[in-house]
Amino acid sequence: MSVTAAKGFTAAGIAAGIKENGNPDLALVVNNGPRRAAAGVFTSNRVKAAPVLWSEQVLKSGQLTAVVLNSGGANACTGPKGFQDTHATAEKAAEVLGIGAGEVAVCSTGLIGVLLPMDKLLPGVETAAAQLSEHGGEKAAIAIKTTDTVHKTSVVTKDGWTVGGMAKGAGMLAPGLATMLVVLTTDADVDSETLDKALRAATRVTFDRVDSDGCMSTNDTVLLLASGAAEVTPGYEEFAEAVRAVCDDLGQQLIRDAEGASKDIKVEVINAATEDDAVEVGRSIARNNLLKCAIHGEDPNWGRVLSAIGTTSAAFEPDRLNVAINGVWVCKNGSVGEDREKVDMRYREVHIVADLAAGDQTATIWTNDLTADYVHENSAYSS
Amino acid sequence: MSVTAAKGFTAAGIAAGIKENGNPDLALVVNNGPRRAAAGVFTSNRVKAAPVLWSEQVLKSGQLTAVVLNSGGANACTGPKGFQDTHATAEKAAEVLGIGAGEVAVCSTGLIGVLLPMDKLLPGVETAAAQLSEHGGEKAAIAIKTTDTVHKTSVVTKDGWTVGGMAKGAGMLAPGLATMLVVLTTDADVDSETLDKALRAATRVTFDRVDSDGCMSTNDTVLLLASGAAEVTPGYEEFAEAVRAVCDDLGQQLIRDAEGASKDIKVEVINAATEDDAVEVGRSIARNNLLKCAIHGEDPNWGRVLSAIGTTSAAFEPDRLNVAINGVWVCKNGSVGEDREKVDMRYREVHIVADLAAGDQTATIWTNDLTADYVHENSAYSS
Repeated sequence: MSVTAAKGFTAAGIAAGIKENGNPDLALVVNNGPRRAAAGVFTSNRVKAAPVLWSEQVLKSGQLTAVVLNSGGANACTGPKGFQDTHATAEKAAEVLGIGAGEVAVCSTGLIGVLLPMDKLLPGVETAAAQLSEHGGEKAAIAIKTTDTVHKTSVVTKDGWTVGGMAKGAGMLAPGLATMLVVLTTDADVDSETLDKALRAATRVTFDRVDSDGCMSTNDTVLLLASGAAEVTPGYEEFAEAVRAVCDDLGQQLIRDAEGASKDIKVEVINAATEDDAVEVGRSIARNNLLKCAIHGEDPNWGRVLSAIGTTSAAFEPDRLNVAINGVWVCKNGSVGEDREKVDMRYREVHIVADLAAGDQTATIWTNDLTADYVHENSAYSS
Repeated sequence: MSVTAAKGFTAAGIAAGIKENGNPDLALVVNNGPRRAAAGVFTSNRVKAAPVLWSEQVLKSGQLTAVVLNSGGANACTGPKGFQDTHATAEKAAEVLGIGAGEVAVCSTGLIGVLLPMDKLLPGVETAAAQLSEHGGEKAAIAIKTTDTVHKTSVVTKDGWTVGGMAKGAGMLAPGLATMLVVLTTDADVDSETLDKALRAATRVTFDRVDSDGCMSTNDTVLLLASGAAEVTPGYEEFAEAVRAVCDDLGQQLIRDAEGASKDIKVEVINAATEDDAVEVGRSIARNNLLKCAIHGEDPNWGRVLSAIGTTSAAFEPDRLNVAINGVWVCKNGSVGEDREKVDMRYREVHIVADLAAGDQTATIWTNDLTADYVHENSAYSS
């Protein structure tokens, strides 16, 4: 499962003592080849954590042999010392694995603005390396959890080759990407240009459309590593579809585990003039705190959907807008539609359709409700 | 006080039965002249309520004699019938007051997507007209409350002339404007062009910079009426400053009464390259749910300030950013600054300074924390 479902990969997850509660906090993923192709996408936040700056650099070669991931600290906004720490982490992994530091990506997640306890992290890299196993994917997925209540893995197996992966993320989920660390692996024999193309195509319509709380992290990283161990080179479309399917599954798992959420909300924008319009409107709806509170209260408050649409620059006429909530067209032509009493909101999944009546493009954004539990969890996170 | 502090104005506030709980819900403000100049600014939401569409039209003349305001229903997203209802309200006021409907602005606030009970509203206009008084400003301010816990009024008296006003607003507070109904009156002898100029200048730096929850209403309206009864024409700068002062005071009252809030947060952006940059950064910080939760928990989580800044297009270098919370520079040069333990967050007001180190422009945005009470209040609003 996880990152070791594909042949050619080993992984480990251990408790290095970075987290004060003693939970697992360090993961190592190694590509044993024969190929070491890799691609990555990173946060579009301009305040980038040290490990993001480092991993962007090493990815330029299109090659990666190992990924070190830690929870318990984001190593973001930590200045030159923070960057030195990331560098030292890569050096340590390189030394233990007998490779170059330029083949090692680093990912960190946790509180911003705190230096990592390197006296615990560096010995932890040695310990993890000693435990590398082709059955280690599950443990690696567990070690990258922060406020996640469950670890997230996904695997798609095709004709002789596999794409698998792990993800962490529960809050600060917003596009570009959706605050997460994700490592995907495949044993397909694919070069780094193809990996890059497939990964960008996949994240654009999956992780980039998960928007839990509108807050964009400093540490988002999604890596895709190919070992070539299956000795199969799939056609591009088939490969890209497998990568997209794994990203979509992991993205759904992120939303289902979003901090404090009691409802998963699928915001589907239809009949938009352009895909960009559909995405803009979908995000505006997904980020409307008042609507998210209403959904939490099982209140099909379509007026808040319209007021969110009204803040966008998308092409539409107010008196042609239609909104359905769980299949009931509660708003027709910008005004009162079917009886809102017909809307059944007892279930966890809520489906909002916003019809812009302006074209034939569509996009779906996933979000969740806003709850008192979200407030409680995020009032106390760093203290 | 309120809208009747300035000479030449009468007002009334009554319970017309629009609200099911029997609270006051209808206000009438009348300008008895001799001048009837007026100006208005309205929501920039493209989904505009019927009363906004009506009032924008009648304001084109630069003249207003009366304003009818109701709480208990926003008359937004109510289609052609909603617009007919607004028209009928203006006609009724015109009939009772012996004026033309084109001299009557209408404002509504409350739930979106529900038609107003005209069988109660229209008789209410007659009742209100019968109670018009130069002491009616306070009652009018009370009648426009929705989830407001207090009514909001403000008065500035200068040398022989006065600017006063009333406001309602507690949630859906976001710029363009900050979800509110505001009626300002003055007895200064000022023409409608001057009123318009002073009002736009004032709202741009006051109501437009109040951002409680990032949600923009469909009904925002700020009206300024001049009676000329003081027979004084102040200089423009002095007049504009008085209008700004009243708007600023009312804006502060809105933030202090924001739904569920336990902290008032002043976000001051300094050393920005442009004022637009400063406003963009201030809004991004003010809308960050994770930061707003942290402030609620009295946690000086400056990492969330930086991650919010990082999502903007403003000019800055990440390693030159500085952040102070309540006077303690917890972030220096994009990294750890003074000890966060020094930050005293026990008080209701929280002051965040974000130094972009990119120029000499500044802007201040007011917001509040995100609390479980906000969630509770807005989960149950329409049900």
